[in-house]
Amino acid sequence: MESKTSITIALDAMGGDHGPQVVLSGAQIALERHPDVRFLLFGQEASVLPVLEQMPKLKARSVFRHCEISIRMDDKPSQALRQGRYKSSMWQAIEAVKTGEAAVAVSAGNTGALMAMAKFCLRTMANIERPAIAAIWPTERGESVVLDVGATIGADSQQLIDFSVMGAAMARALFHIERPTVGLLNIGTEEVKGQDDVKEAGRLLKETELAGLEYRGFVEGNDLGKGTVDVVVTEGFTGNIALKTAEGTARQIASYLRAAMTRTWMAKLGYFFAKSAFDRLRDKMDPRKVNGGVFLGLNGVVIKSHGSSDAEGTAAAIDVAYAMAANGLLAKIEADLGDVYAHISSPVVVEPVVDEPDVEDVR
Amino acid sequence: MESKTSITIALDAMGGDHGPQVVLSGAQIALERHPDVRFLLFGQEASVLPVLEQMPKLKARSVFRHCEISIRMDDKPSQALRQGRYKSSMWQAIEAVKTGEAAVAVSAGNTGALMAMAKFCLRTMANIERPAIAAIWPTERGESVVLDVGATIGADSQQLIDFSVMGAAMARALFHIERPTVGLLNIGTEEVKGQDDVKEAGRLLKETELAGLEYRGFVEGNDLGKGTVDVVVTEGFTGNIALKTAEGTARQIASYLRAAMTRTWMAKLGYFFAKSAFDRLRDKMDPRKVNGGVFLGLNGVVIKSHGSSDAEGTAAAIDVAYAMAANGLLAKIEADLGDVYAHISSPVVVEPVVDEPDVEDVR
Repeated sequence: MESKTSITIALDAMGGDHGPQVVLSGAQIALERHPDVRFLLFGQEASVLPVLEQMPKLKARSVFRHCEISIRMDDKPSQALRQGRYKSSMWQAIEAVKTGEAAVAVSAGNTGALMAMAKFCLRTMANIERPAIAAIWPTERGESVVLDVGATIGADSQQLIDFSVMGAAMARALFHIERPTVGLLNIGTEEVKGQDDVKEAGRLLKETELAGLEYRGFVEGNDLGKGTVDVVVTEGFTGNIALKTAEGTARQIASYLRAAMTRTWMAKLGYFFAKSAFDRLRDKMDPRKVNGGVFLGLNGVVIKSHGSSDAEGTAAAIDVAYAMAANGLLAKIEADLGDVYAHISSPVVVEPVVDEPDVEDVR
Repeated sequence: MESKTSITIALDAMGGDHGPQVVLSGAQIALERHPDVRFLLFGQEASVLPVLEQMPKLKARSVFRHCEISIRMDDKPSQALRQGRYKSSMWQAIEAVKTGEAAVAVSAGNTGALMAMAKFCLRTMANIERPAIAAIWPTERGESVVLDVGATIGADSQQLIDFSVMGAAMARALFHIERPTVGLLNIGTEEVKGQDDVKEAGRLLKETELAGLEYRGFVEGNDLGKGTVDVVVTEGFTGNIALKTAEGTARQIASYLRAAMTRTWMAKLGYFFAKSAFDRLRDKMDPRKVNGGVFLGLNGVVIKSHGSSDAEGTAAAIDVAYAMAANGLLAKIEADLGDVYAHISSPVVVEPVVDEPDVEDVR
């Protein structure tokens, strides 16, 4: 029997590069940390059930549903929608959120397909024109929320304000801060032309006292690592490139470090003594620890886990899903958007379907 | 007597956060590496000459010229132009390039002011609408050229092609590669809308066989650290944020590393044994080693040294200046632009003054 207080997470067991074995192992780790979780597992019987049989604790807290179709990592969004709508494990995990069976859906499947299906199934929230993907960014101070990291290219001032409000609601749910600080990503030179939308969004956020966030002005690329603010807001092209640049730089330095530590016998000896310190460092730099991109702006919460995640990474994404559900992210966002629209502007009314050409061709 | 083969570098001795002492110390280090260099030093007599007196070798290879005005690090570009045109050390260093007295100018003064003055004094090259700032980016493979890192926001397809050609010419001069590989910075998702200029530039570069570069397609943020291509091309907003994000990430990891290595006695002991390995690592991560942003697209080469550079960093910027002058960067760019315009399109003819509002208000 499902208890009233349990949180149900819908899991696309087929997503990611490694398939059900890794996804279910991740769920098992997450279950140890959150014993009240229940899972709805979607996937192909033949590949999921044998794995689930090996994990009795997980099996006891899970309901499995067979889905014929699995979305491949290289399926294009339009292709995934055409072939996988209604029938795929990815779709059904999302649909479980729509029907209310699950509080949140998690998939390590390909981002484009997942976003296309999530938009099509859940639709954008009233007043929100475009969803965003929010990443949890490790910083010198702890963690920040950064969005959009690649849902859509470009954002006007209204959308940047939406992102600020949604990102702040997520930071509140995740970090338990009353009024998270928010910064708009910009470049230093004051007199450079362009980016009028960023300036306009900054002006509006500065002029308006919002209950849900504290606007701190512009921040630059190096403020991401410093953790200057709790929430960094930018449009998806820049956000995606910043995210991947940081990942690349971390990997680059790790490779320098490996080379330096194995170069001489003295260095190897030093490594031996400092091993636990190095493990700590690796831990800090470990992208698995901060896995889980959150889709914001839809009528339901969907979490994207890294395609290459191992069990630990998958568990981290499920942790994020749990936090979002347990803290009522969706209700927070709705309330805060109400506040911002009461203060800043009347929302632009947009037909949700207009902006979804990927969807047109599957009709 | 100046020999025929010597290279003269104009130096703004007042630029940067630390003033003449650091700039001149940097020049002295660079002089040891390039004994054929001559310097034209511009600055305030009272602060430069006492320092120069302490450096007899540098003094013997330098000509000093007094300038009343020094541009401050927080002067706005328009303000700097209004107050410092003709009279400042920054202006006069640039003007020495225009008159042919110097092959290249180096300043650690503020970027906005330096770019405004360089544009006003040197003007953009025929066919080039906007100059770019190119950075030298340390990678796992060695170094890459990345541009634009902040000269202007936004770039159309023609400007991205110009950046590709200019960046490749710089890579050729710097790395001595016949046909440097070039990639356009983009985000992975294929079906995301927008960035039509990047796609169009990619299409044109793919279709055209250019003598000066080998186009390799789109690259992502993590390819910057990998060094996937010799030249990474993007518009200035994204480029600036990528650069600062990488700097911030490197600083963040260095701070993790410091904390990890001083946390326990075992770690401290390990640090002791691995010290030379750590020094090597620090060397690799040292932003001073790759100092020197190159202004491309002007009728003359100007190098921006980091404002916070120490003597070693300044020397690195002068090294870059030397390489650009010794390898005839300007002539390479002119030849390559001729090649690209013969193949790709007729250039857009733009009145150079139209795009310079900073300049309007000083007339």
